[in-house]
Amino acid sequence: MPISVKALQKTGPDAPFKVATIDRRDPRPDDVLIDIKAAGICHSDIHTIRNEWGEAHFPLTVGHEIAGVVEAVGSDVTKYKVGDRVGVGCMVNSCGECEECRDGQEQNCTRGGMVGTYDSEDVDGSITQGGYSEKVVVNQDFVLRIPDALDFDVAAPLLCAGITTYSPLATWDAAPGKKVAVLGLGGLGHMGVQIAAAKGAEVTVLSRSLKKEQEAKELGATRTLATSEEDFFKNHRGEFDLILNTISASIPVDKYMSLLKPRGVMAVVGLPPEKQAFSFGSVIGGRKAIAGSNIGGIPETQEMLDFCAEHGFGAKIEKVSVHEVDDAYERVVAGDVKFRCVIDTSTFADAEVEA
Amino acid sequence: MPISVKALQKTGPDAPFKVATIDRRDPRPDDVLIDIKAAGICHSDIHTIRNEWGEAHFPLTVGHEIAGVVEAVGSDVTKYKVGDRVGVGCMVNSCGECEECRDGQEQNCTRGGMVGTYDSEDVDGSITQGGYSEKVVVNQDFVLRIPDALDFDVAAPLLCAGITTYSPLATWDAAPGKKVAVLGLGGLGHMGVQIAAAKGAEVTVLSRSLKKEQEAKELGATRTLATSEEDFFKNHRGEFDLILNTISASIPVDKYMSLLKPRGVMAVVGLPPEKQAFSFGSVIGGRKAIAGSNIGGIPETQEMLDFCAEHGFGAKIEKVSVHEVDDAYERVVAGDVKFRCVIDTSTFADAEVEA
Repeated sequence: MPISVKALQKTGPDAPFKVATIDRRDPRPDDVLIDIKAAGICHSDIHTIRNEWGEAHFPLTVGHEIAGVVEAVGSDVTKYKVGDRVGVGCMVNSCGECEECRDGQEQNCTRGGMVGTYDSEDVDGSITQGGYSEKVVVNQDFVLRIPDALDFDVAAPLLCAGITTYSPLATWDAAPGKKVAVLGLGGLGHMGVQIAAAKGAEVTVLSRSLKKEQEAKELGATRTLATSEEDFFKNHRGEFDLILNTISASIPVDKYMSLLKPRGVMAVVGLPPEKQAFSFGSVIGGRKAIAGSNIGGIPETQEMLDFCAEHGFGAKIEKVSVHEVDDAYERVVAGDVKFRCVIDTSTFADAEVEA
Repeated sequence: MPISVKALQKTGPDAPFKVATIDRRDPRPDDVLIDIKAAGICHSDIHTIRNEWGEAHFPLTVGHEIAGVVEAVGSDVTKYKVGDRVGVGCMVNSCGECEECRDGQEQNCTRGGMVGTYDSEDVDGSITQGGYSEKVVVNQDFVLRIPDALDFDVAAPLLCAGITTYSPLATWDAAPGKKVAVLGLGGLGHMGVQIAAAKGAEVTVLSRSLKKEQEAKELGATRTLATSEEDFFKNHRGEFDLILNTISASIPVDKYMSLLKPRGVMAVVGLPPEKQAFSFGSVIGGRKAIAGSNIGGIPETQEMLDFCAEHGFGAKIEKVSVHEVDDAYERVVAGDVKFRCVIDTSTFADAEVEA
């Protein structure tokens, strides 16, 4: 029998959030029922629900940064037991059989693609509903273990912002002796700085101004450079091994590529709506690359959670109640959050379901 | 005392080639004097001498695909002796001290850059003069050994076209089980096909038409696809691990990126004059990369020569005399060469020096 739970729902792109009840499927043998303790607000949630990435399926509950406790398990579940501290990120299923899935890169599933945690067609034909909710039911293979050292609220954003920055930093080798620049210091950037610093790289934040210099330092950055300074690109030519570009605005690509040493990489994780123009000469000279990265696979997500726990950090967050999410969205869009909003799902308890 | 040798010289971008005498420096203790047997014609020579890449220093002799025999060595030369079969590629010096030089990536020298084989400022302040000539004097560290299995004329183009394609194919792992597409079948592309096939990859040539299908097959390609076919990009979506882009014209970048599997790379070695526009989404989805490559370092160039010798192939060439180079340039620009023109420098012997 489906499980009825409270959730924050939007009935259309312009409607405010309302507290509604939605059904979670009766757990299948390989499913885990999770009591959600915290749900991060990701900019992707906003893009989706505002129809900026295509037509969303309304009514819709978003959220793919989920942390909580196992409340029940299906008969075939071997990986988790009731009471385990767990998380769910951006995907809840994939084919499991293609080369990418077999290689632990489920986000790249080539047979139909991964099933997103919300607004995707689920195994039963329904549309997946995300984590701004009391509970969720997920196949055990897409559930992560949250180490005891991480509180639920600081762990939740790791499931998207954490892995999105960890994966490229691991792939393109942020390590001792390497100079890493993190472009943008928002939800993604603040994780990138912490992870790159914990990996032993020398981290520089690139930002329009020096406004966030103190925060950058506290997160582990050696310095902050204002990209608006005179002769910025000339003065810092050839300095970095890796640029992690977390912003979703257009950039002068050739100029940023000139900041890289030979064999350097610009890894982009933010998606500007416009095409970006650059000269092939910017990658040919010095054998550089412009690479992209999209979250990461399940094994690497677990590795990232364990890494953060080992190094004693999670996301830097502001907690909001279920009634403050519309306002939080405005603040995320305005870049006025340090650094991630997380919904305290305990506030569902007293929230009345709206018609 | 400088050595006076015959060379093909241009006095300006629009002047025809003429046979002139130029001076080669008296070999220093670490220099090698090479009797040139063959000199390849590279499209870069044409770009340079036509001022398409900036103002060249006239009068100028170009050519950076040089094969010949050691005629004399300086007192400190340990690597070569008189009679050795040797070659010289795109560079004749670098700082030797920066991280790139120490790592055998002299082409990326970060202290002043590599010294090009022609039209660059040499150690003595003079402008380097290239290989369309009887002899050349080069520091031993920038001289390569040509294996006995390779004739001079098919070896010469390896020094630029060979290493330019070998290096990205090695870096991005053309290997058994990998599907490699080579875009363009000219001087670079025909080497790319041979090298990728010899490395065990399954090679597909991408060309506007099927005109060169037979040649592609003979070079080792499994198939040729016409990019002009209807629904080409739709039909071949997600097929390739690596695209080696050898053309120097603009391409629809997003469409080509869609031909790649997840984690695929487009390696560009051809430089279109216009900026290329693409969506960051084309690299974010599937963690792909657009990477560039520029020749390769001295150790890798030697590795490439040995690899070609071991696998029994060189460049496919047409020999031209010193009097046919103007005509050869027209044919190179028209794409009417299979696949590289090489100057038979023995034809200097009877050529009269022009005023």
